[in-house]
Amino acid sequence: RINGQRLWQSLMDLAQIGATPKGGCCRLTLTDLDRQGRDLVVGWGKAAGLSVEIDQIGNVFMRRGGRNNSLPPIVAGSHIDTQPTGGKFDGNFGVLSALEVIRTLNDNGIETDAPVEMVFWTNEEGSRFVPVMMGSGVFAGIFPLEQAYAATDTAGKTVRDELYKIGYAGEHTPGQHPIGAYFEAHIEQGPILEEQDVTIGVVQAVLGIRWYDCTVTGMESHAGPTPMAMRKDALQVATGLMQEVIAIANQFAPHGRGTVGMVQVHPNSRNVVPGSVTFSIDFRNMTDAEVDKMDAALKAVIQQTTQKTGLDIALRQVSQYPAAPFHADCKEAVRRAAQKLGYSHMDIVSGAGHDAVYMSMLAPTGMIFIPCKDGISHNEIEYSSPEQVSAGANVLLHAMLEKAGV
Amino acid sequence: RINGQRLWQSLMDLAQIGATPKGGCCRLTLTDLDRQGRDLVVGWGKAAGLSVEIDQIGNVFMRRGGRNNSLPPIVAGSHIDTQPTGGKFDGNFGVLSALEVIRTLNDNGIETDAPVEMVFWTNEEGSRFVPVMMGSGVFAGIFPLEQAYAATDTAGKTVRDELYKIGYAGEHTPGQHPIGAYFEAHIEQGPILEEQDVTIGVVQAVLGIRWYDCTVTGMESHAGPTPMAMRKDALQVATGLMQEVIAIANQFAPHGRGTVGMVQVHPNSRNVVPGSVTFSIDFRNMTDAEVDKMDAALKAVIQQTTQKTGLDIALRQVSQYPAAPFHADCKEAVRRAAQKLGYSHMDIVSGAGHDAVYMSMLAPTGMIFIPCKDGISHNEIEYSSPEQVSAGANVLLHAMLEKAGV
Ligand SMILES: NC(=O)NCCC(=O)O
Ligand SMILES: NC(=O)NCCC(=O)O
Repeated sequence: RINGQRLWQSLMDLAQIGATPKGGCCRLTLTDLDRQGRDLVVGWGKAAGLSVEIDQIGNVFMRRGGRNNSLPPIVAGSHIDTQPTGGKFDGNFGVLSALEVIRTLNDNGIETDAPVEMVFWTNEEGSRFVPVMMGSGVFAGIFPLEQAYAATDTAGKTVRDELYKIGYAGEHTPGQHPIGAYFEAHIEQGPILEEQDVTIGVVQAVLGIRWYDCTVTGMESHAGPTPMAMRKDALQVATGLMQEVIAIANQFAPHGRGTVGMVQVHPNSRNVVPGSVTFSIDFRNMTDAEVDKMDAALKAVIQQTTQKTGLDIALRQVSQYPAAPFHADCKEAVRRAAQKLGYSHMDIVSGAGHDAVYMSMLAPTGMIFIPCKDGISHNEIEYSSPEQVSAGANVLLHAMLEKAGV
Repeated sequence: RINGQRLWQSLMDLAQIGATPKGGCCRLTLTDLDRQGRDLVVGWGKAAGLSVEIDQIGNVFMRRGGRNNSLPPIVAGSHIDTQPTGGKFDGNFGVLSALEVIRTLNDNGIETDAPVEMVFWTNEEGSRFVPVMMGSGVFAGIFPLEQAYAATDTAGKTVRDELYKIGYAGEHTPGQHPIGAYFEAHIEQGPILEEQDVTIGVVQAVLGIRWYDCTVTGMESHAGPTPMAMRKDALQVATGLMQEVIAIANQFAPHGRGTVGMVQVHPNSRNVVPGSVTFSIDFRNMTDAEVDKMDAALKAVIQQTTQKTGLDIALRQVSQYPAAPFHADCKEAVRRAAQKLGYSHMDIVSGAGHDAVYMSMLAPTGMIFIPCKDGISHNEIEYSSPEQVSAGANVLLHAMLEKAGV
């Protein structure tokens, strides 16, 4: 079993860097605080005897050799960048539980067949630079290094410059690093485990995501003198579509998700019938085929609405992330570990995107979820208890040992 | 008949003060441009032999004596302040057609029994200082002078200071000025006259208005990991209510109007289920009793929705303007004038608030509408043709003569 107190202490120590008044953490990617966080974790890795390899997008791998170093390593990790009003656990828990696994192997003098590695990926959050999951995306060849380098923050600074500035632009070509299997421990960021009072979620897949912007264009007019029948009220049509987004998600249950998170009304004046409305749509489901069906349903509704109302409705896809079904071996390794350790466990899907999505395209991949209080994350009050954190790390230990071979 | 060319020229001359690139006018109340506009109109009035009386809120009355100056005057007017991206006609047409009526009486040496007056009211638009229809509201005793004086613009400047600065804080107590009857000629600001190809609208009433802010409070959560059934999606509930606003307006036809013009979503992020949504509601109808029924229907829907969804829904009334049914004598005077002049005419209601609303509480009041292109106003492209403008002023002339007695 891992040392729960040491793991908790490391989480709290790392959260000091960028600590916020409400007990959260603001450590945006590629800032000086990120550098300090990286230095601390790399220092811990070196103290644990690990060798360090940094690639050109700033992903950091730290390695504990095995009996057979020609075997591809069993890798675990996540990210240490946070949201602007982020918590102490999102990402950090996955990285530090991988460190704790290695410290535990050291404490007990356990040798593995394959090498064991921990990794933290650059810019998972996407708060400062888009797209999200940048480091793992470049590593998996989803988008080119040069494109990631060129991304700018709101101040116009580039990823390339900021990466050099903090000294984490490594020499290794992203994606050249071998991976035998990848595990990521993470807080659930949702309410299910807590509601079901279950300790460990055996993650089956990450939902596929599709993002759109939809703009309805009507005709601005005065709220008083314009009779109801003569209006081209963009908001009236848009609210109908927003309700259809929810209906479509419910139709493609149990894993369908539909969210309108962002709305912009023009001219947004109390006594003017809105001339145009733009809103975001976030669709998710278990398989890309299911997301495709939601996409088709949305387009059908939009076509009907256009015909019925005569208003112009433009739908633009903003981005998409493929569904990532996890490898049976890794799912079973997680389940067996939970069973062996006597933790209650259940199958679960990850609704949120993770670096594991891109890793699953390269190697057998699995994820371990632990509950978080009230399902809240991306929030300073994000919380998992020391017991929950320890349980997740113990499962990670045993899943990795199964794959690495003792 | 009035001199249509002179009226048109005066409209174009006044619109030079604050002229905008797209052919509109930006002459916000109590600015230096407003002073220039006031000076121009007062100069024209003096040149026409009128005496000038200014009250403490800056309303300007200009008088042409009658045979019997102990009779209360027959007054016509409107406002000369504009929206930030306003047009040349809204308000200005009412003021300058009153001036044109007086110029025409002078040209033809026509004496009236009662005196005839023109007036322009301070701050009808409410763009710079709230509330709208400020000058006429103070005059009618709807709110006290001191309250109007204390109103501030976004720069923190008060009505009192700005009024003194432009030299239009008069000595007369608002409301002390007698009014025998009041007429206001105005562009329709809606599509009906144009659609029906009718020259003159005989305005029956101004709709009563009630404004609200409605806030739905749910629970912010991550768009991915939160299953549909476990959400407290404030926007989903709010869009249902927004549709009910429209349904209620349609239910209280033909004069019911319901508009949601303003929406604010929190935190307004693509992958966050909205935690709260605030939106405006604008209800209008022909009588206050009908508006009351709409209010009751809205509150019933909110109560049902609260019970059904469990989300908190707060409704706050922001302001209200009473319905203003116009006096039979004035409506008939307008109708007869249109008939006599051979103009096509129809009964119409004013959906927008006007200074005539408050005047109707003090004296018999009537309004004359002319068409405006595509029903557009509060816009730089606002337009009525010289023929339409002339027709409205001719009707005003004959309606005033009927009431003043020749
Ligand atoms: N884990 C996480 O919050 N990812 C951000 C992308 C998303 O799932 O919306
Ligand atoms: N005439 C006019 O636009 N009044 C403003 C108040 C309103 O009717 O919404």
